[in-house]
Amino acid sequence: MNSEFISALQEIVGETHLSVTEADRTQHGRDQSSHPASLPEAVIWPESTQQVSAILRLANENKIPVVGWGAGTSLEGNPIPVRGGLVVDFGRMNQIIEIHAQDFQVTVQPGILYKDMNKVLARNGLFFAPDPGANASIGGMVANNAAGIRTVKYGATRDNVLALEVVLANGEIIRTGSRSVKQSAGYDLTHLFTGSEGTLGLVTEATLKLAPLPEHFSAVTVAFPSVEAAAATVFNIIGAGLNPAALELLGAELIEILNKEAGFEFAVLPNLLMEFNGASEASLNEELALVKEICEAYDCERFEAGLGREARNRLWEARHQVFEILVRHYAGQTWSLTDVAVPISNYPELVSYAVETSRQLGLNTVFVGHAGDGNLHTTSFFSPEDQATGDRTKQLNEKLVSKALALSGTSTGEHGVGLGKQKYMMQEHGAAALTVMRQLKATLDPHNILNPGKVLG
Amino acid sequence: MNSEFISALQEIVGETHLSVTEADRTQHGRDQSSHPASLPEAVIWPESTQQVSAILRLANENKIPVVGWGAGTSLEGNPIPVRGGLVVDFGRMNQIIEIHAQDFQVTVQPGILYKDMNKVLARNGLFFAPDPGANASIGGMVANNAAGIRTVKYGATRDNVLALEVVLANGEIIRTGSRSVKQSAGYDLTHLFTGSEGTLGLVTEATLKLAPLPEHFSAVTVAFPSVEAAAATVFNIIGAGLNPAALELLGAELIEILNKEAGFEFAVLPNLLMEFNGASEASLNEELALVKEICEAYDCERFEAGLGREARNRLWEARHQVFEILVRHYAGQTWSLTDVAVPISNYPELVSYAVETSRQLGLNTVFVGHAGDGNLHTTSFFSPEDQATGDRTKQLNEKLVSKALALSGTSTGEHGVGLGKQKYMMQEHGAAALTVMRQLKATLDPHNILNPGKVLG
Repeated sequence: MNSEFISALQEIVGETHLSVTEADRTQHGRDQSSHPASLPEAVIWPESTQQVSAILRLANENKIPVVGWGAGTSLEGNPIPVRGGLVVDFGRMNQIIEIHAQDFQVTVQPGILYKDMNKVLARNGLFFAPDPGANASIGGMVANNAAGIRTVKYGATRDNVLALEVVLANGEIIRTGSRSVKQSAGYDLTHLFTGSEGTLGLVTEATLKLAPLPEHFSAVTVAFPSVEAAAATVFNIIGAGLNPAALELLGAELIEILNKEAGFEFAVLPNLLMEFNGASEASLNEELALVKEICEAYDCERFEAGLGREARNRLWEARHQVFEILVRHYAGQTWSLTDVAVPISNYPELVSYAVETSRQLGLNTVFVGHAGDGNLHTTSFFSPEDQATGDRTKQLNEKLVSKALALSGTSTGEHGVGLGKQKYMMQEHGAAALTVMRQLKATLDPHNILNPGKVLG
Repeated sequence: MNSEFISALQEIVGETHLSVTEADRTQHGRDQSSHPASLPEAVIWPESTQQVSAILRLANENKIPVVGWGAGTSLEGNPIPVRGGLVVDFGRMNQIIEIHAQDFQVTVQPGILYKDMNKVLARNGLFFAPDPGANASIGGMVANNAAGIRTVKYGATRDNVLALEVVLANGEIIRTGSRSVKQSAGYDLTHLFTGSEGTLGLVTEATLKLAPLPEHFSAVTVAFPSVEAAAATVFNIIGAGLNPAALELLGAELIEILNKEAGFEFAVLPNLLMEFNGASEASLNEELALVKEICEAYDCERFEAGLGREARNRLWEARHQVFEILVRHYAGQTWSLTDVAVPISNYPELVSYAVETSRQLGLNTVFVGHAGDGNLHTTSFFSPEDQATGDRTKQLNEKLVSKALALSGTSTGEHGVGLGKQKYMMQEHGAAALTVMRQLKATLDPHNILNPGKVLG
């Protein structure tokens, strides 16, 4: 990236919206994962789609790597600029373009943060449901197909994107999809770009499906004698056709830390945290009675339902902060995080296997999962100097991925491929499907400038 | 297609599973649309993915067009072999491979018919919700991203496909997706192939999401003084956050025909046909009270709720047969069918425009729509000899597409592009997005053997 190139970029966005300072480069060199940092050569803040187009055209001509940047909250190294080059920070493209309240839709720029957007939408009684916990940017959520505690009811980001504006590697601007909830007009480009982790194009506008904020809800916490019993309960709740709005599994180690660090008084056992939204208090109570019955069949120890709005909000806020709380609790340690997901009938087996394997490997592992989706996260903490333990956390990851694939699942339910899951792509998809993915990448980004080194390597 | 090629095909499937008779070719020369027939040179009935792979490899080497065939129930000429070549009929690949009842999933071969599959699934209390009315094949539904009266609640086919096995143009077999409901592992090939109308690959296996059969339901019929009032009611029902399991609009002309041909006694006015599924009778009644209130605000004339199971099943059976009933009623006439869809807030304007435009053009038009999805169908009947009227039906189609696009909608909500919607693709997607679609097609099918002449022309 020579000075001529830098000058050309400055001409596009203005001098003050490009930086080569170490502070700015460092801030755009790593996400919230434990993958090592890698700094870009420069950071640029465009303020329009036209500017993004001009930047990409220029980068493509000069074969300079370009990585889109939202809030840096991803967990698999997805936006780390491993080949240097240019980071495009969407912080100045963070506006709500239009709220289509009557259609339960919103059109936004990619830099808007999830929580900021939902605060505005709440005035219309609406919210964007895929909830990654972190205050991610919408562009990042679309790029990574993010999901979270509400996905069990409302789906992942991919299920809630109707239309996109995307700038291609060559600077061309395309629009995909439409605001019609039904669309059969040609190839589904919207879903192809969603979850492509910025390797096929940069999203500059997204139209999202929203949901009405629930009027009647009940949060439930319930403790179980074992993680296995909790997982079996999850399977039975989903299998009974109940429709939880959240269904989270937290291991006993995590519960202990939450009690200590966030002032909760959970039973120090594996817990399920749930929420149900009913059409009325009456139907909600019917649903809860059935939930309780299932929990009792698995010897639950403390069933608390009907938490008020404040207690419920505090519960989910704590759930959202689990990762930060853990990192703080284990200050000075590093960690290895997994993200496998399986069909719900295989969830108990996956969870048992994870518990047993972590024990066998002698790891300090915290278990937490979007259980209702069959998604399990394990986080194993260890000292950065302790390479032997670090290697064993890698073994845990590998074993969990193999087990999840054997159980008809996936190596990554929601964090994306980024850097850490590339080595499993062949095992998960097979050579022929991987060839198709590589062909699509080569077709859309022939010079491999878009987030090179990610997804397919 | 010379005799050597035919012999090679016969070697793959056995002599009895290939036909060049005029009867078989004629049977595979047109769908249920009014697009003219075009016969293939031969029809082949493979019985395994390996055979499909061998067929495609051979066809690709010889650059012979190949069109997949399910039940022939599509409505836009989608499977008509306009360039001749070979039709691959999936009639012998029609098995349920596995019912994953506990996961609410099923894995099937593409030739199985929708209704046959759902009969089997009903024994497990489950069903595949996207309901195209016609007894389509699952392969056809996946290829066309079919939808129907249940889509308002459960989504289209695309929203309910988890994993596919696909044979590419070159004979390679790939598997896409997984049985995990959450997946973030690389590019979304599943959704790319779904709705690609057999132009990117042939689906040989599909894993589908299922839903539990509703326990409590109430069907509702209600008449309105005008189509506009009915459409406004639809918008308000959806806007109130109610969650109909079906919400259909039928124009007065159609009601009159249904009364005559199917023995109903509807008020001869525009009618809404709805269904609601509640968690209990109590919550169902609450929902219905609100629905009634909204209908009354638009001067509804006959509100009948709580139809029994038999009356409800008869209602939807009649709705499913609307197209056949119309074709029978207007025997000897041909027709022009539209399929636009818009965001729900624009549905009243779309419907008013359609009524007014049809009137101005002096057409005999029947109005019917999956109103809850913002999807409107108009069917205009005319004598095959009456070219002037035929031209005016084309004008109606063009005007409705332009209007739908101006209203942030789509030229085709569920019938696909096929032959009839190609001319609107540029208008709908723009040149840059269309170029991307063409590039994807050229990448995956470089010799253009897969359903050539469709989607992108």
